[in-house]
Amino acid sequence: MTALSTPALSNLQINADRLWSTILETAQFGGTPKGGVKRLTLSEEDRQVRDWFRAACEAAGCTVSVDALGNMFALRPGRDASKAPLGIGSHLDTQPTGGKFDGILGTLAALEVVRALNDAGIETDTPLCVVNWTNEEGSRFAPAMMGSAGHVADLPLAEILARTDAEGVSVGEALDAIGYRGEVPLGTQKFSGFLELHIEQGPILEAENLTIGVVEHGQGIIWYNGRVTGFESHAGSTPMHLRKDALATLSEIVLAVEKLAVDLGPNAVGTVADITIARQSRNVIPGEITFATEFRTPDAGILEALDKGLQAAVARIADKRKVSVQLDTIWRKEPTHFDPKVTGAVAAAAQKLGLSHRPMVSGAGHDSFHLATIVPTGMIFVPCKDGVSHNELESATKDDCAAGANVLLHAVLALAGDAAKA
Amino acid sequence: MTALSTPALSNLQINADRLWSTILETAQFGGTPKGGVKRLTLSEEDRQVRDWFRAACEAAGCTVSVDALGNMFALRPGRDASKAPLGIGSHLDTQPTGGKFDGILGTLAALEVVRALNDAGIETDTPLCVVNWTNEEGSRFAPAMMGSAGHVADLPLAEILARTDAEGVSVGEALDAIGYRGEVPLGTQKFSGFLELHIEQGPILEAENLTIGVVEHGQGIIWYNGRVTGFESHAGSTPMHLRKDALATLSEIVLAVEKLAVDLGPNAVGTVADITIARQSRNVIPGEITFATEFRTPDAGILEALDKGLQAAVARIADKRKVSVQLDTIWRKEPTHFDPKVTGAVAAAAQKLGLSHRPMVSGAGHDSFHLATIVPTGMIFVPCKDGVSHNELESATKDDCAAGANVLLHAVLALAGDAAKA
Repeated sequence: MTALSTPALSNLQINADRLWSTILETAQFGGTPKGGVKRLTLSEEDRQVRDWFRAACEAAGCTVSVDALGNMFALRPGRDASKAPLGIGSHLDTQPTGGKFDGILGTLAALEVVRALNDAGIETDTPLCVVNWTNEEGSRFAPAMMGSAGHVADLPLAEILARTDAEGVSVGEALDAIGYRGEVPLGTQKFSGFLELHIEQGPILEAENLTIGVVEHGQGIIWYNGRVTGFESHAGSTPMHLRKDALATLSEIVLAVEKLAVDLGPNAVGTVADITIARQSRNVIPGEITFATEFRTPDAGILEALDKGLQAAVARIADKRKVSVQLDTIWRKEPTHFDPKVTGAVAAAAQKLGLSHRPMVSGAGHDSFHLATIVPTGMIFVPCKDGVSHNELESATKDDCAAGANVLLHAVLALAGDAAKA
Repeated sequence: MTALSTPALSNLQINADRLWSTILETAQFGGTPKGGVKRLTLSEEDRQVRDWFRAACEAAGCTVSVDALGNMFALRPGRDASKAPLGIGSHLDTQPTGGKFDGILGTLAALEVVRALNDAGIETDTPLCVVNWTNEEGSRFAPAMMGSAGHVADLPLAEILARTDAEGVSVGEALDAIGYRGEVPLGTQKFSGFLELHIEQGPILEAENLTIGVVEHGQGIIWYNGRVTGFESHAGSTPMHLRKDALATLSEIVLAVEKLAVDLGPNAVGTVADITIARQSRNVIPGEITFATEFRTPDAGILEALDKGLQAAVARIADKRKVSVQLDTIWRKEPTHFDPKVTGAVAAAAQKLGLSHRPMVSGAGHDSFHLATIVPTGMIFVPCKDGVSHNELESATKDDCAAGANVLLHAVLALAGDAAKA
């Protein structure tokens, strides 16, 4: 990081007003009345923000390419064209009732880093590549982090393209519908490393009044799809002991998931969501229910214990109630450990900029988890209000967003090298 | 019942083939591939069966009138026009995935009684009135037994007409849409008594290998609408102890309802159904859920204990989890005790016909519960396969349906009096 001794560079800052205005500008694509964003992956709103992003990157002098899953790569040349670029970015899709910062901050801050380097006339030694990953959220198509999963070959392309949403539309059809099934073969865009700025999506930084989280680990994740099959019958005339109530069965599963996560905590969480009850009527005992459930923990041993514990609990509950419960593991990701060189550069940048910081574990899943399996990777967190995300109330301050972008800038300068343009 | 000593009358039987064929014929209106019936009240399918029913009653010599809630009354004159008619019938609407017998048997058997009396040239002393009550099921519009509730002034007409379905269509709009908002003011059709044949919708008669249930009591019912308001947040980054999980909260309520019914049993049932989770996504902790719950028991004291128990459990759960739970009682019906004169006539008819029988409590709610508040009322049960109803698998045998209709016929002859036509 010798170059950082150069006074001009060590004082370099991104343009906080410009970063903030791009966040507000893009929030209009799928903006909700409550101030959130509904921009499901590969939707019309996603197409709008992708078109905006492509134009903005090209205006900043980047060459934009799109791969077979719609992942977008905006290349900024470096002095040494033989080097694989340093990837920086995140995602632009959101939850059904998401906010203006989750993923968006990291993608637009990466664009802002390029703009700031342009303004300062700085050319890095290693090329840079601003990335927008497809379907990080996973709420329209499962699993989450789909684009980066495909990039690192964690899932085969054909299988990903065949995944369907609730309306039966496949990923392939959705890509074609918005014109973002690209020419570039999956995985051909190489990186020398990857760095992602993101809101924490948790309460820790705010609670400890810190500005920067240096993310050293990422949680392991297991996603399950479940189905309870009991028997529908009359709510008034079916004695309690003769019931096969699918909702009462699910209720025991929900509380078992909660208890497992608490008992194996504090570094574990478990959630049941996305319930569908077939043929509902208020005086019919629920007979069939589908549900989604998941566990997350940074400890591989605890992840295994949670999985075994759930399988055992479900078997016990199904046997006791004489109902059938099917539980399919649709995705499993072991815990992630980020690269010390990259996390070191993040910590050093925060230190140099005089920003308070601490090492952290990422609670949420991120595309960087996948990138970490192929190249040195790291992440930067900034606080979000009340730790809330995946919610229209999601909020982060202009100052914290700028601080995170400045840490990203200086970590990039440290990792990609730099020199004044000729 | 002196007239029953007449040999011709004591041997009188309904036409079992004709009754069975009308059941199969009307099952086509809303018939499902699995052999059930989907005929939600005031739907197009309901209009079709109503038109069929009106024509069949008129062909049987009855005069059909319709009241302001679409309740249909088919009057068969008696010798003494000064007497209020004896009401016989049930309902023709079904659950979303209902069967061919629930309500339908009682309505078509009443029609068959009139046809059998016509064939035998018998005129009763008291006029007869075959009735089809509107919205007994309550699955499109709450509460159940809406038409008979209006008839006995248990609910005001204006309030009933304003009730809306899931699509926001009001009862009044639905009545107009199928042309069944009638001329007759609500409640003006008088009765001297009421008698309803119905499948048991429970397992008791079948288990004891009996043919006829003489229904002496009906369960009290409380219906609640509930809403859990927690807080949506990220499933991966929200620590367990900071969650306000609406689904985990609901799960405790579901199990509390189940436990209350079991603990205060065996003559009590409790059910939670009809769940709606707002803004679902598999990696968002559920923040808001609406649900329906109910209790039923023939014991007024137990009904009160169930209600108090639920209120206390909900308060405790909401307080423990720091979430808001709203619980509104939308309907409460105290236990029903049928008229000994009517139940006696039913038991005597079964005895005379050599049919095995026992006194019973009705688990399900029926329009007769409302009629019992204004006139001497009774019910006849016949077995249904495995006690199943509110399910496409609902089934009853031709012989049991005929047996029930014959008990209805002879109870009618006993209660309405009879004489050979001049």
